[in-house]
Amino acid sequence: METQEEYELIILGGGPAGLTAGLYAARNRVKALMIEKAMVGGLAVYAELIENYPGFPSGIGGIELGQLMFQQAEKFGLKSLTAEVSGLEIKGERKIVKTSEGDLVARAVIIALGSERIQLGVPGEKEFLGKGVSYCATCDAAFFRNKDVAVVGGGNSAISEALHLAKFASRVSLVHRRDQFRATRVFEERARQEPKISFLTNSTVDSIEGKEFVENLQLNNVKTGAKTRLSLSGVFVAIGQRPNTAFLKGLLTCDPVGYIMVNEKMETNVPGVLAAGDIRANSIRQTISAAGDGATAAMFADRYLGQ
Amino acid sequence: METQEEYELIILGGGPAGLTAGLYAARNRVKALMIEKAMVGGLAVYAELIENYPGFPSGIGGIELGQLMFQQAEKFGLKSLTAEVSGLEIKGERKIVKTSEGDLVARAVIIALGSERIQLGVPGEKEFLGKGVSYCATCDAAFFRNKDVAVVGGGNSAISEALHLAKFASRVSLVHRRDQFRATRVFEERARQEPKISFLTNSTVDSIEGKEFVENLQLNNVKTGAKTRLSLSGVFVAIGQRPNTAFLKGLLTCDPVGYIMVNEKMETNVPGVLAAGDIRANSIRQTISAAGDGATAAMFADRYLGQ
Repeated sequence: METQEEYELIILGGGPAGLTAGLYAARNRVKALMIEKAMVGGLAVYAELIENYPGFPSGIGGIELGQLMFQQAEKFGLKSLTAEVSGLEIKGERKIVKTSEGDLVARAVIIALGSERIQLGVPGEKEFLGKGVSYCATCDAAFFRNKDVAVVGGGNSAISEALHLAKFASRVSLVHRRDQFRATRVFEERARQEPKISFLTNSTVDSIEGKEFVENLQLNNVKTGAKTRLSLSGVFVAIGQRPNTAFLKGLLTCDPVGYIMVNEKMETNVPGVLAAGDIRANSIRQTISAAGDGATAAMFADRYLGQ
Repeated sequence: METQEEYELIILGGGPAGLTAGLYAARNRVKALMIEKAMVGGLAVYAELIENYPGFPSGIGGIELGQLMFQQAEKFGLKSLTAEVSGLEIKGERKIVKTSEGDLVARAVIIALGSERIQLGVPGEKEFLGKGVSYCATCDAAFFRNKDVAVVGGGNSAISEALHLAKFASRVSLVHRRDQFRATRVFEERARQEPKISFLTNSTVDSIEGKEFVENLQLNNVKTGAKTRLSLSGVFVAIGQRPNTAFLKGLLTCDPVGYIMVNEKMETNVPGVLAAGDIRANSIRQTISAAGDGATAAMFADRYLGQ
């Protein structure tokens, strides 16, 4: 049997939801631990400029916001651990969190592990990762200065990636399988006004090709069946997320996609287990709503602990 | 019949929930109007320093945060109106908002009118308002420099008011009807460590007395029945809030206290009518959760409008 540390509350994930839950837990003087496998800030760290987090009229960088949130939670005494979460067991009051650093025990758990990016699943995507294929324009755009790139996707993140890439690349093709975008209108309008961005709608990716680095994107027009080859140096995949709930193995009630069902208190179907942020069903997957969820989850976790 | 302006969305209230809903609606290019009767920022404006709004590790003033949020929403084009809301009528798709500036019509409504402070209801409370009786230490503490004051209440706002007053007053008596406080522990600990603050538990207020200004507080010990007279110059009432839902006249499903019932999408029982922030049931009444609610409500209002 591995060592088992005991906590009142364990928070899984160090994105805006987990950091805010941690801030509230620390201020409530709960014996809490936040677990994050990599860098704090969650998917927000991929946003070069967040314009819709209230309180920052000029916008704020995602990495910077994550760091500020972490600093604030630590200031009030939040403890954190770098580890990967691999499982959760419920033994009534005892919740056992399985991690790469061993088992941890708490009376309450807040799951704030967010979601991860979905891959295209086409030939070339894996081989050329880091050699022209990327999931993060904020991280990699500068490598494509004065080069041609494509962004694949039709939502906010795709448009946002395209706008960011237009600052560096000479041409940005926005490849989308439908003819309508499902992005915020202000974002789409901005992209339409950017002369470097061209729109390739009704198009899917057949494959990503090249020798050492990416050279071509093979496209298929879903309406006409026409095949097109697009010469470029970079492909940015931005087709959505899936919740990081595989480790739960059916323990909690989830929606058909796998997002955890919660009520307006962020309580799941298991007492003492709460979910917050992108991982919960019907999250709008925004930094502000994730942070709000985290505060709510921490307060109701506290209420559970006080029972 | 009064003039009826038509909007896609009307947001009732300009606190953190309404301002964030407005920011999101404006960025979604929804034809939206935010209605606020007084100053933007909601009850947050009474907080001298907000330490638990993530992103501001050194804290931020409530008035300043409200202004930043308003500036940000206006930057993206949010329109607002100064008016008092007096009623809501639902005619299917058409929602009619009755205000002091006339009737307004929208397809969707977000109710973010928050809650208001509860009064003690004892003799002297009304007569001495502004003459020693206050509901806002942030606003009035400086008037009580080197004087004795009392704070009535046992929650976060009472402790917060007491801590703030201790910076000015010579003595702060915290009067609470129970023997336990229901404040965040870190707050209570801080108050216990402040030598200027003394705790009068199991005590209720019988009356507030004085000539031109407050001079005495008549207290009743609920355990012993003993009556005490406390000499002081100021009484700060901090015993809680009630939701501003009277104007709804039973139109929406509310909890027993009157807070509007919502699901995790901030939808009420009426399609196209959403609620966000302190006014919704099970809100933790924090700036961050109100803001998160506002973003969620705006996104689901947008989804309703797009149907």
